[in-house]
Amino acid sequence: MARRIPVPQLEGVTREEFLQRIYPQRKPVVLKGIDLGTCTTKWTADYISQVGGTKEVKIHVSTVPQMDFIKLCLLTGLYTGLQKTSTRNSLFQRGCLFKEEKYYLRSLGEDPRKDVADIRKQFPLLEGDIKIPEFFEKEQFFSSVFRISSPGLQLWTHYDVMDNFLIQVTGKKRVVLFSPRDAQYLYLSGTKSEVLNLDNPDLNKYPLFFKARRFECVLEAGDVLFIPALWFHNVISEEFGVGVNVFWKHLSSECYDKTDTYGNKDPTAASRAMQILDRALKTLDDLPEEYRDFYARRMVLRIQDKAFSSNYE
Amino acid sequence: MARRIPVPQLEGVTREEFLQRIYPQRKPVVLKGIDLGTCTTKWTADYISQVGGTKEVKIHVSTVPQMDFIKLCLLTGLYTGLQKTSTRNSLFQRGCLFKEEKYYLRSLGEDPRKDVADIRKQFPLLEGDIKIPEFFEKEQFFSSVFRISSPGLQLWTHYDVMDNFLIQVTGKKRVVLFSPRDAQYLYLSGTKSEVLNLDNPDLNKYPLFFKARRFECVLEAGDVLFIPALWFHNVISEEFGVGVNVFWKHLSSECYDKTDTYGNKDPTAASRAMQILDRALKTLDDLPEEYRDFYARRMVLRIQDKAFSSNYE
Repeated sequence: MARRIPVPQLEGVTREEFLQRIYPQRKPVVLKGIDLGTCTTKWTADYISQVGGTKEVKIHVSTVPQMDFIKLCLLTGLYTGLQKTSTRNSLFQRGCLFKEEKYYLRSLGEDPRKDVADIRKQFPLLEGDIKIPEFFEKEQFFSSVFRISSPGLQLWTHYDVMDNFLIQVTGKKRVVLFSPRDAQYLYLSGTKSEVLNLDNPDLNKYPLFFKARRFECVLEAGDVLFIPALWFHNVISEEFGVGVNVFWKHLSSECYDKTDTYGNKDPTAASRAMQILDRALKTLDDLPEEYRDFYARRMVLRIQDKAFSSNYE
Repeated sequence: MARRIPVPQLEGVTREEFLQRIYPQRKPVVLKGIDLGTCTTKWTADYISQVGGTKEVKIHVSTVPQMDFIKLCLLTGLYTGLQKTSTRNSLFQRGCLFKEEKYYLRSLGEDPRKDVADIRKQFPLLEGDIKIPEFFEKEQFFSSVFRISSPGLQLWTHYDVMDNFLIQVTGKKRVVLFSPRDAQYLYLSGTKSEVLNLDNPDLNKYPLFFKARRFECVLEAGDVLFIPALWFHNVISEEFGVGVNVFWKHLSSECYDKTDTYGNKDPTAASRAMQILDRALKTLDDLPEEYRDFYARRMVLRIQDKAFSSNYE
């Protein structure tokens, strides 16, 4: 099993310290003792049910704690989740009634295909309770997302293309992270890893997984985890918990896909490179297998030579 | 140090046996006891000097046994090599006079930029002495090359894109081969490996080289080595020796680069794929190093997934 590298924890970091010493390193870090406002004490399940109002939200429901991104979509339905209704129990009520079901709320924009999530717009009554550490310029802001999850729920390992502050308001999460450099050991399907069970992975199916360096931290209420863009992360809610995360742009705005509302579409230059690569691979289809294999290997060598970073760590 | 895998030796193989059992396996094999004509006894240094005539040939001269493809070009001059002349000693004479110099003749077409080597055209008086095993169709013929080398001379590890019979007429050669599958351990520069000293490689500079599976054989006078296209080979002349090799097309004619006279230009589909790849990599240049590295790794994963052969061996 891979050794576990603890994510460094830093107490009372200021905006200036973050920007000068931490941000340029592009590595995850847990910020402790950041002033988050009154939310850390106020945001009980009851309070949120009341203040959240009758807003309809989409929640994910899973019968297994490890959410599977293929099965999950089938289980996702529209719930009036923040308030009891006559037809449906609230998210919290249901969470208590059916122990075997796991719930996950990830807030969306008004029109999720066009709008990004922004708690200031979707949850104006809650917004006043939280001070989001804005350790970036206003124009870098991408989205702020409200997250509520059942105890035991595990979110699959994935990366986002935005820089991220994951703010643990109440409850406790265990977060496992992997460097973008270890992508080759994570068996990716799009932005997600196919290895769902991190603690007991199927090494016959995923033999290289043990090579991935596993960074790990436990977020307590009040902690803020900086997840740099491209860093893989897997989140397990150890307790019922409420969180907010804020995504912001690391690159200049024109680098990003304009249609991205989740913060997980690859920068346009990257998706263009991938499309061009597919054309190159199509060209190799004219050759027999042994030639295709050989020239594919030469292509890999060329990529490693020309585009891999030499300051590997 | 890598283990050495002996190249299989087969005695008295017929054209039909070769085509049915050996050729489709795309692996090197030493054919022994093939009827090569009278050349194996007739082609002494004196005989070749007389019969070769006054033909001017280009020979490579090297002051070190391990020919270095970068330094070599500087040392290559025009010699009237097959016949004594008043100004220059013959290839053989010089070979005897200056022990520290190594000579290598690789015959070329009449106009080396346009014509392929064909011993029937360039050495008509010698051609009658050798029966080239034509285990292929007439239209597959690409070139036949006359090769003479000093004892101790080592030719760098490289691959050709044509199938190849290396015919050892006189003398003795040690040939080391590597599978195209092991390209990633050979530190390629174009079609050549940068690892020159196979027996004592600089493992600090070439740390992966030991992973390459090393196939090896010694060719005695009369032996024919089948080198499939793309297989890397390194040739050390253990004695002064004369050889002929014949290149033929494995793929259909339109797959090859029309301007190739040496048999070592990549098939057009492969060079096109490489050009397209370069465009893809250029697109990544718009991103900062950490993104470029990450998406380059994703490109590698895509290539491995889509174009690597799964029947690895």
